[in-house]
Amino acid sequence: MCMVNFDYGRMSRMGFGETVLAEGKTLRDLVEILQAVLEKNAPLLVTRLSASVYQTVLEALPHLAETCHYNEHAGVLRSHREVSLPSPGETPLFKVAIVTAGTSDRCVAEESLETLMHHQIPCTLFGDVGVSGLHRILNIQEKVQAADCVICIAGMDGALASVVGGLFKVPILAVPTSTGYGASGQGQAALSSMLATCANGLSVMNIDNGYGAAMAAVRLRNMLFLKLEDDRGRKILN
Amino acid sequence: MCMVNFDYGRMSRMGFGETVLAEGKTLRDLVEILQAVLEKNAPLLVTRLSASVYQTVLEALPHLAETCHYNEHAGVLRSHREVSLPSPGETPLFKVAIVTAGTSDRCVAEESLETLMHHQIPCTLFGDVGVSGLHRILNIQEKVQAADCVICIAGMDGALASVVGGLFKVPILAVPTSTGYGASGQGQAALSSMLATCANGLSVMNIDNGYGAAMAAVRLRNMLFLKLEDDRGRKILN
Amino acid sequence: MCMVNFDYGRMSRMGFGETVLAEGKTLRDLVEILQAVLEKNAPLLVTRLSASVYQTVLEALPHLAETCHYNEHAGVLRSHREVSLPSPGETPLFKVAIVTAGTSDRCVAEESLETLMHHQIPCTLFGDVGVSGLHRILNIQEKVQAADCVICIAGMDGALASVVGGLFKVPILAVPTSTGYGASGQGQAALSSMLATCANGLSVMNIDNGYGAAMAAVRLRNMLFLKLEDDRGRKILN
Amino acid sequence: MCMVNFDYGRMSRMGFGETVLAEGKTLRDLVEILQAVLEKNAPLLVTRLSASVYQTVLEALPHLAETCHYNEHAGVLRSHREVSLPSPGETPLFKVAIVTAGTSDRCVAEESLETLMHHQIPCTLFGDVGVSGLHRILNIQEKVQAADCVICIAGMDGALASVVGGLFKVPILAVPTSTGYGASGQGQAALSSMLATCANGLSVMNIDNGYGAAMAAVRLRNMLFLKLEDDRGRKILN
Amino acid sequence: MCMVNFDYGRMSRMGFGETVLAEGKTLRDLVEILQAVLEKNAPLLVTRLSASVYQTVLEALPHLAETCHYNEHAGVLRSHREVSLPSPGETPLFKVAIVTAGTSDRCVAEESLETLMHHQIPCTLFGDVGVSGLHRILNIQEKVQAADCVICIAGMDGALASVVGGLFKVPILAVPTSTGYGASGQGQAALSSMLATCANGLSVMNIDNGYGAAMAAVRLRNMLFLKLEDDRGRKILN
Amino acid sequence: MCMVNFDYGRMSRMGFGETVLAEGKTLRDLVEILQAVLEKNAPLLVTRLSASVYQTVLEALPHLAETCHYNEHAGVLRSHREVSLPSPGETPLFKVAIVTAGTSDRCVAEESLETLMHHQIPCTLFGDVGVSGLHRILNIQEKVQAADCVICIAGMDGALASVVGGLFKVPILAVPTSTGYGASGQGQAALSSMLATCANGLSVMNIDNGYGAAMAAVRLRNMLFLKLEDDRGRKILN
Amino acid sequence: MCMVNFDYGRMSRMGFGETVLAEGKTLRDLVEILQAVLEKNAPLLVTRLSASVYQTVLEALPHLAETCHYNEHAGVLRSHREVSLPSPGETPLFKVAIVTAGTSDRCVAEESLETLMHHQIPCTLFGDVGVSGLHRILNIQEKVQAADCVICIAGMDGALASVVGGLFKVPILAVPTSTGYGASGQGQAALSSMLATCANGLSVMNIDNGYGAAMAAVRLRNMLFLKLEDDRGRKILN
Amino acid sequence: MCMVNFDYGRMSRMGFGETVLAEGKTLRDLVEILQAVLEKNAPLLVTRLSASVYQTVLEALPHLAETCHYNEHAGVLRSHREVSLPSPGETPLFKVAIVTAGTSDRCVAEESLETLMHHQIPCTLFGDVGVSGLHRILNIQEKVQAADCVICIAGMDGALASVVGGLFKVPILAVPTSTGYGASGQGQAALSSMLATCANGLSVMNIDNGYGAAMAAVRLRNMLFLKLEDDRGRKILN
Repeated sequence: MCMVNFDYGRMSRMGFGETVLAEGKTLRDLVEILQAVLEKNAPLLVTRLSASVYQTVLEALPHLAETCHYNEHAGVLRSHREVSLPSPGETPLFKVAIVTAGTSDRCVAEESLETLMHHQIPCTLFGDVGVSGLHRILNIQEKVQAADCVICIAGMDGALASVVGGLFKVPILAVPTSTGYGASGQGQAALSSMLATCANGLSVMNIDNGYGAAMAAVRLRNMLFLKLEDDRGRKILN
Repeated sequence: MCMVNFDYGRMSRMGFGETVLAEGKTLRDLVEILQAVLEKNAPLLVTRLSASVYQTVLEALPHLAETCHYNEHAGVLRSHREVSLPSPGETPLFKVAIVTAGTSDRCVAEESLETLMHHQIPCTLFGDVGVSGLHRILNIQEKVQAADCVICIAGMDGALASVVGGLFKVPILAVPTSTGYGASGQGQAALSSMLATCANGLSVMNIDNGYGAAMAAVRLRNMLFLKLEDDRGRKILN
Repeated sequence: MCMVNFDYGRMSRMGFGETVLAEGKTLRDLVEILQAVLEKNAPLLVTRLSASVYQTVLEALPHLAETCHYNEHAGVLRSHREVSLPSPGETPLFKVAIVTAGTSDRCVAEESLETLMHHQIPCTLFGDVGVSGLHRILNIQEKVQAADCVICIAGMDGALASVVGGLFKVPILAVPTSTGYGASGQGQAALSSMLATCANGLSVMNIDNGYGAAMAAVRLRNMLFLKLEDDRGRKILN
Repeated sequence: MCMVNFDYGRMSRMGFGETVLAEGKTLRDLVEILQAVLEKNAPLLVTRLSASVYQTVLEALPHLAETCHYNEHAGVLRSHREVSLPSPGETPLFKVAIVTAGTSDRCVAEESLETLMHHQIPCTLFGDVGVSGLHRILNIQEKVQAADCVICIAGMDGALASVVGGLFKVPILAVPTSTGYGASGQGQAALSSMLATCANGLSVMNIDNGYGAAMAAVRLRNMLFLKLEDDRGRKILN
Repeated sequence: MCMVNFDYGRMSRMGFGETVLAEGKTLRDLVEILQAVLEKNAPLLVTRLSASVYQTVLEALPHLAETCHYNEHAGVLRSHREVSLPSPGETPLFKVAIVTAGTSDRCVAEESLETLMHHQIPCTLFGDVGVSGLHRILNIQEKVQAADCVICIAGMDGALASVVGGLFKVPILAVPTSTGYGASGQGQAALSSMLATCANGLSVMNIDNGYGAAMAAVRLRNMLFLKLEDDRGRKILN
Repeated sequence: MCMVNFDYGRMSRMGFGETVLAEGKTLRDLVEILQAVLEKNAPLLVTRLSASVYQTVLEALPHLAETCHYNEHAGVLRSHREVSLPSPGETPLFKVAIVTAGTSDRCVAEESLETLMHHQIPCTLFGDVGVSGLHRILNIQEKVQAADCVICIAGMDGALASVVGGLFKVPILAVPTSTGYGASGQGQAALSSMLATCANGLSVMNIDNGYGAAMAAVRLRNMLFLKLEDDRGRKILN
Repeated sequence: MCMVNFDYGRMSRMGFGETVLAEGKTLRDLVEILQAVLEKNAPLLVTRLSASVYQTVLEALPHLAETCHYNEHAGVLRSHREVSLPSPGETPLFKVAIVTAGTSDRCVAEESLETLMHHQIPCTLFGDVGVSGLHRILNIQEKVQAADCVICIAGMDGALASVVGGLFKVPILAVPTSTGYGASGQGQAALSSMLATCANGLSVMNIDNGYGAAMAAVRLRNMLFLKLEDDRGRKILN
Repeated sequence: MCMVNFDYGRMSRMGFGETVLAEGKTLRDLVEILQAVLEKNAPLLVTRLSASVYQTVLEALPHLAETCHYNEHAGVLRSHREVSLPSPGETPLFKVAIVTAGTSDRCVAEESLETLMHHQIPCTLFGDVGVSGLHRILNIQEKVQAADCVICIAGMDGALASVVGGLFKVPILAVPTSTGYGASGQGQAALSSMLATCANGLSVMNIDNGYGAAMAAVRLRNMLFLKLEDDRGRKILN
């Protein structure tokens, strides 16, 4: 009984392809989808793919290891692509800065990073700059200012987002993480805090949704491409 | 005892000025702030200002009525400004489309609208296009596609955001509203639904935060201005 | 000490027999019930029976494998019965369409499917038609219209239910699933969204309760049988 | 700025017309909608219309009082229609029984009742039969059995739904009400209880959503009309 | 570092001894407490003791197996005592009836049972009499009426408590269980439902707290002993 | 349309009559019930009857003032009855002590008190003995010990219940109140605290349910009457 | 019936007197307490006393206006006392700094302030220094450092507490306020955020509990007095 | 990609060093941090380090075992330091008393204890003094009074905090624990209860945050050192 209905036309319709969320799928369905996408030679992006599930999938589809890159911390599998990161000194069209409150937010940050790289968006990561040592975010303020959009990842109190919101003019994509315990409520405290922020115009994602923040950045890039009638954008958006 | 610490430098620092949230302030503090801002001749934007509080404030500051515009549905007071809406046929630099699920979402939509107008961003409103009559959103799809960013306002199930997320390539700013009863949970159902959406890269605001969505759009415009080194942007962002 | 009180008269009283919920029962109680039901030669339907518990039960009751069918994804065990599915071209008295938002909703869909088959109700499954690619549900609209009742299964935002509610005239049985993370709240977002839906007259089931939706369909069939004084119904309902 | 987008085609598309939810609408929008619908001579159904709002609307649209019927307890306004209630002894095509746990559930019950009458569905109401005096529901069991569908309305513990679910073969539409205090949680206890019920195949509506239960019954009637190719149905559904 | 402060005087002060809650204690603390109590020759009652922890404790205190009785389903360990259950025909001073909604509530029921036996209170168990088959509770009504107090154990909707509350005159001790899934909320639905019950004067315990209901029954017995100046009570309460 | 179904047989069946919950009823229904009960000359007990509703009811039924007693703080109306409180020195069959944590718990305490008086159960009230001044409860310990059952009423932290549970041997009926703000959650903190108590065998009621605690005491009295075959009990229970 | 049990000995026992929480008390009880305290000539501190209740109390106890000071924003009434604020240049033994995130937190801040003044603790207030304009808190950093303890009051995201926690060495008493809407959850977001903070050793109070923070400061002062065997402390603590 | 940004200057800035929260970090990040801190010869404090993670870390950094002390119950690893506990009879500058409600609160208590020892603060632990046996806390009252600050650790109802708050004059740092089940809500009941306490000026920490309470005590000590210009303080705070 077929449950799979992959949306191959999404790239041309939306400016980005369909992503496969591994979590919650039966192994058989997952393998069936990956095989189909690979056979179509379509770009592949899989999220929430645990190391153990990846190993089992690899047994069914051993060529995955050659055509794709797997990042265990991110839980992301993506097809090899030429990622044309800007050479030093050269300014890319659109670039993202990721800031995280703590070292424990690494997995979410890497999910964002891999998703951005899949969409060929250059990105710099500034880890462990939480507000309990305020000098850390102030020290990198100038570097972050070079980005067109800031992804702010924080668990526990989520307070970094409000501070970041007051420091930068560009779009802020705030991602609460499930770091913390007790009243953190698996990310609920950070989520509510980011939604209720005193800073202006923050955009909020679901808890641990590093992927979503990266996709919101892809939409920003889409807007820019459409606006600028940029050649690279034309390839992607038409 | 002074509790007021208005941030006059926010415009040059952030690309937008400080907004006054009327709700929760004592009348005395509110009047004091407004008076000070008006004396400085700084642009004024007040949100969550109910009609009855506005009337009381007017008694203390009768000249408000001349220098400012008050929208009762939006609960917004803003200083008169030349809003250079594009003349027909001319394409503005950056424009926003607002779609709402129901007629009951008007107040939130007007809060967005007034905030956008205060920041001189042209905007078109498409009301009452909820998904229980799917033809309504499909009918306006082409018109909405002309916008650089879509603000999607919906209460109850918040389902419009997921549908909108699948129809447009540009940034989607989703605002849950407190429309509905029982399991709607004063907007909690729409909020969770928008955060948990199956659509890619949606950005979510606090419940009823039409103001926040408009400010997120201002940040998008800021990014564009910085990118394009546009003259109008230079005036605002430097 | 006896804790078991199986309701053998439920079929004649209600138009459907008692179902055994395996989850939460001690192994000894579970085996005792199954043995008793088999000895009475009564039809058997067991839900929420994990593969590992099934294996252990099989050791105690090895003949189960011959007399019953077990579906691991559904977690359902049911006695073999002649399922008189309509031959091609022939219209059955009452038929159900199941639509699911994603591939991850398979387990819940199969629980519905097995329960319907146990009650001899033909059913077609349309998987992975979530609203972030709206063409998918619109493409199957005509086929679904042939059904007397639609079971709509969706996790995350649960938005499919509101869209489905606006497309079909017949009863809609909405099942939220625990697919998703963070603000999805183990199905809570989809549940609230379906209860708060802007669509008219949707019926909602407990989270992941594919069984319940199928039983609601059985009640619809019962009503039809009583109404039509149908011969097949007479056998079941009297 | 127009926020109203009334769906006049819903009747032919869905088998029922659009309903106006008064709650949350501005007075101006409400009056505008009612006037437009009346001018089109379309059937009118308004829910959640409080007595005081109705009075204000009446001032703007005084002819409403002649063409429509207003029920204060139900908060429902509906256009006069020939309701062809079955004459004594004659069996109507489709009929509904409403049972309520307590006298305090009256308002929700009347919302169901008015909505059913608007759709010309005959209905009998059995009030105050909560399970703390079990004889009350048992006494009416036979009478309720004559109905094709049971709407069960209960607040507090919502326990009546589970008992009703075990007594009748036909579809049960359970409506939790906000009757009760403290742990009742404005209907949350009854809602969870009905969703988690030990009875089979109950369908659940939002808290206080008497309207929704009636609309689910309309969908049942639609199914029956489609099935039977009934003349009355043909008029409504084609 | 000593964390243990066993209350040996509780029996004379309260009419019942201190109970050891195994859950959450380190193994070392648990063994230390049990050893001390056994050395004092005080009666021992341990709850929430899983089979695996019991096995590890047994290795440290092998004589436990001789002096105590362990019930795996109940998770209860208690010292051997002469339980003077009434001989047939003889009426005991105070007796309890336990009714459970489903077979899955066995573990909680056995926790009550073991606790009652430890306190020498005779008790009859009526399992699997949930309200979806109402005849089951009605069939045993007369037998239950012989008890001085009813412990009612139910998960999911918790509806049995409300029905039981309307059938019996004596104290009802209602225990919600974590049986069920989704909206059951690990017993939260049953708990709220029992607290919000339409029946009069029900007493409610924590979720799965079979022990607590038994202890509430011990308090009832204490009251009776004090009232009657009964000899058996004198031994216990003085 | 009749929604009223008063249970006149409850006294003989249950040992207590039906109580009328005024809250949530329409005025017309309320007046209809009261009139019917008075005409039957049945004992009347109405709870949650606000002063303003009582005044309006009085206009329709002026003789209420003569035949009944109304307590505004309790929100209770009850028919005059000879309450045979024990003369000084004489020990009544069954008596209750009510302890409250604070002065703010008065309304709930008076609801208990009036309900007990309606059922002719003598009762002593000890107000404002919360645990932040522990001497207050210790000072009255001896006096409370004279009661057969303790009703413990507390809001905020609900901590008094746990302390009371450790001081007295007899049944403890704990009532959380909605006193407090913020994290008190309208009584939710006290409720959870009482359910999770470290004390043994406490029984818990719904938030602010002083009536429920009194009814649980009536059930205790019933048990005692049945046990003792007391003459007074015989009149009530047969 | 007396519900009042004022704890006159609390000052000598605890180092602070009993406070009267006006909210939730009946007017009669409130007047009775105030009268008794005034007659005893004991110091009086009343919190959560709204302006309208105060006016009604004043009618019963007109001399209150002379002997006490009422602050409407704080909702605090306190007896006149010589508050020996330090003269300029002189360092007081123990002093507090209050910082608030916004102007809307004034009422909570004034509750703290009045409570501190009642206990003769000098205090400086720094209002409206929320983190969305980070320069505001950094500008006052040095001044705040002069205090022995910081009370940090913030609503919405509560982020100020985490930043303050990283700037100062001394005890931080964090008070979440109910400022904000939607996901702010009446202060719940700020509360969870403060509890889950990434900063070290913050102490958290109930929502809007400005009084509680001041009392925690009184306990700090008590510790200091005990430590220093200070003369002023001796008067208060012995 | 570097995610680590250790704050070596925190000791001089704050009076305490940065602590490493092991939970949520990848093994590689954890090892990298520990190695760096050890190489800098900075004092090391790691919390939430499970025994199994510690073992794996030890394999990478075997010298940890010599330079540090690991407490499995506390989950704390800290560098060896001369802890100058006061010799008998000598009064230390600042000392803490820890009281716990039950034996099950040991792990949280030991986390506090280890953190205090790391900061050279002497401390006495009084375990298992919960309020259901009130004599236990009263028996140790005098001993606890010798401390400058009380850390009160309690799960379930959290009632000990309110009682402790009424017995001692000095700062009370209340820590709710996740001990308990059902309505305890993983510590939520104790947390709300402590926040809503009827006692004055209690400070509350996150659930299970024994570390946080100890750090709040360090802040108290800091205040004292600053106040007293104590030599030991000078070393730490300058």
